[in-house]
Amino acid sequence: MLTLTSDFRSPYPAAMRGVVHAETTDATVVDVTHDLPRQDVRAGAFWLRELLPWFPPAVHCAVVDPGVGTDRDALVVVAGDHVLVGPDNGLLAPVARELAGEATPAWYRLVAPEPETATFHGRDVFAPAAARVHETGHDPLETGAGWLEPAPDPVDLRFPTPTREAGEIVGEVLVVDAFGNVVTNVPGESLDGHREATVTVDGEPVPVRHSYAGVEPGGRLVTVGSHGNVELAVNRGRGDDAFGLGPGDTVRLGVGPGPDHG
Amino acid sequence: MLTLTSDFRSPYPAAMRGVVHAETTDATVVDVTHDLPRQDVRAGAFWLRELLPWFPPAVHCAVVDPGVGTDRDALVVVAGDHVLVGPDNGLLAPVARELAGEATPAWYRLVAPEPETATFHGRDVFAPAAARVHETGHDPLETGAGWLEPAPDPVDLRFPTPTREAGEIVGEVLVVDAFGNVVTNVPGESLDGHREATVTVDGEPVPVRHSYAGVEPGGRLVTVGSHGNVELAVNRGRGDDAFGLGPGDTVRLGVGPGPDHG
Amino acid sequence: MLTLTSDFRSPYPAAMRGVVHAETTDATVVDVTHDLPRQDVRAGAFWLRELLPWFPPAVHCAVVDPGVGTDRDALVVVAGDHVLVGPDNGLLAPVARELAGEATPAWYRLVAPEPETATFHGRDVFAPAAARVHETGHDPLETGAGWLEPAPDPVDLRFPTPTREAGEIVGEVLVVDAFGNVVTNVPGESLDGHREATVTVDGEPVPVRHSYAGVEPGGRLVTVGSHGNVELAVNRGRGDDAFGLGPGDTVRLGVGPGPDHG
Repeated sequence: MLTLTSDFRSPYPAAMRGVVHAETTDATVVDVTHDLPRQDVRAGAFWLRELLPWFPPAVHCAVVDPGVGTDRDALVVVAGDHVLVGPDNGLLAPVARELAGEATPAWYRLVAPEPETATFHGRDVFAPAAARVHETGHDPLETGAGWLEPAPDPVDLRFPTPTREAGEIVGEVLVVDAFGNVVTNVPGESLDGHREATVTVDGEPVPVRHSYAGVEPGGRLVTVGSHGNVELAVNRGRGDDAFGLGPGDTVRLGVGPGPDHG
Repeated sequence: MLTLTSDFRSPYPAAMRGVVHAETTDATVVDVTHDLPRQDVRAGAFWLRELLPWFPPAVHCAVVDPGVGTDRDALVVVAGDHVLVGPDNGLLAPVARELAGEATPAWYRLVAPEPETATFHGRDVFAPAAARVHETGHDPLETGAGWLEPAPDPVDLRFPTPTREAGEIVGEVLVVDAFGNVVTNVPGESLDGHREATVTVDGEPVPVRHSYAGVEPGGRLVTVGSHGNVELAVNRGRGDDAFGLGPGDTVRLGVGPGPDHG
Repeated sequence: MLTLTSDFRSPYPAAMRGVVHAETTDATVVDVTHDLPRQDVRAGAFWLRELLPWFPPAVHCAVVDPGVGTDRDALVVVAGDHVLVGPDNGLLAPVARELAGEATPAWYRLVAPEPETATFHGRDVFAPAAARVHETGHDPLETGAGWLEPAPDPVDLRFPTPTREAGEIVGEVLVVDAFGNVVTNVPGESLDGHREATVTVDGEPVPVRHSYAGVEPGGRLVTVGSHGNVELAVNRGRGDDAFGLGPGDTVRLGVGPGPDHG
């Protein structure tokens, strides 16, 4: 299996699909998404980490690449039973750790990519490299002698961790999803003991609920979303609008003891 | 074959794709659409009924689920050569009748789904159930002893039928498609004898045409669309804007005898 | 392999997917894109020519069809190792020439398509014809005796070529891509000798760069894009907004000798 992910929208991913079908013999090719937030490496890294672990072992080609055409490396990463292919800008770091589990990801770089263009390495560098890894097997360094070499110092990327200040958890918004749900970096466990209670979000009381339907349509809520993190949401509405929050914003969560006014 | 349909947009469907690929051995997985009108069960039911019958026999996983995380059942429905998997909110009722043809759909429910989350049952309940049905064969009750039981009273959903009042057909807008075409619940046969004539829409004369190109670009027309229903459209434009109509609106169609001013 | 391309957005392409899966036995079905500019035959022809050559030999069903329901022909075109299926409006002409290479495309038309509807030939005419070609082999006239005949005079479509006026290249914008990059009809070779120099665009100096990252974020640049043509772009921004240019607009490129102020 070979998967494709990018921030390219449409129609450019079609060229990547064409390349991988042309350069593999029997690959099952699956689009993960091509609607990642445009040129936002951190958001791309988040979604890759959340989505790719649900797939069976595969070669994953992922491109969010504001530095296309510069001398940043093109990477091939062996992470557990998976192989990742993409630019060296941190995009692959969190998902590589996640897929590797107890092991350590092995990072390689293309020795001398000679792309046809300086503007579309998804088609000209990364898709062909992913197809080549798919065809030659999952230990690219062994089978790819000559076109890969160990990457000595790949760019790392780590998501911020929440802190505690004056009884509040000070977190950060990682992404807003297509429903408008505000996904924070605060672990869902922070709400243990407060399920179906009330917490404060930036000082205002908001009910904690098991699911969106736990409040009336249009009502705000705090919940543990599908990523395992604290999310700020509105039942059948948009949390980002209701809370006035977007990616990178700080959010203060008051989970101190208190009566439930929910 | 296993198909996926939802109102999730992107990127959440990727997790469902991952799950069904991971939990089946050789399924052909096809996306129907993930752009169904958001949390609109009736519109989702309409599109499923219109789209799924074009597919070969398959397991269809479909999710429009404003009640996610509540105690609504998760259904498995045998309908003709197809099996449907989705929430018990009426979404599957019209397509089940359509696919069953002369037969009666057989409705089952999951005995004890234990989802990881309360917010993403597409990934945690419905996709795994669809994969399980795909792997064990198309008579889920027989092969699924223990995890399925008959659903005694699944939620039904029926589209409104048009009425007649003072010589007019009083219908309702079911959906507006991506082109802006206004799809009503009025059967195309209502226009028999009026093809290439003029009818009235909410009192105003509009030409009936065989195809969009039957009027000048920008011109309004009434036609029988690809669903077999009366549609209100604009050649190379948007019918919803020109007629000022949206889903759920009443529309009065005057097809009484009269001269053709078209 | 059978590919699908259209301007249908969602969900109508699902019906085409259903039809081709139902009417073929083991086709690998790949979506190219369904987001082509709406009812814009020239833009569709451009994207098909840019995208389909990356695919392995396949049957390509492509629909941008403002004349649906009129008596325009439905075409089947043998072009090199590929076969194209779509409406006779020029959409297939440039890609047919491209895929045929040194050879000449062979143009056929359906003898008597009898579509169920006059509004959705993607589902009712073109997808079934593509499935039939896929099943019967790639020389449709030989295997399709009776349902195809030579098309005597298919609609042609050629992109405009740039001219020279008073030391400037006078070109035209062909398309704007999803990133906002303005793709012109001016060959990239026109910038030979001016790489990393400055040219004028409609009289204003703009630096020529190898890649988007060659200027500061927000900065304008001229580059040779992935189509091999001159593109006007903004690093991490939208070129169409910054240059005030859209499809069909004239653009004057001054590449005369001059000092580099880039």
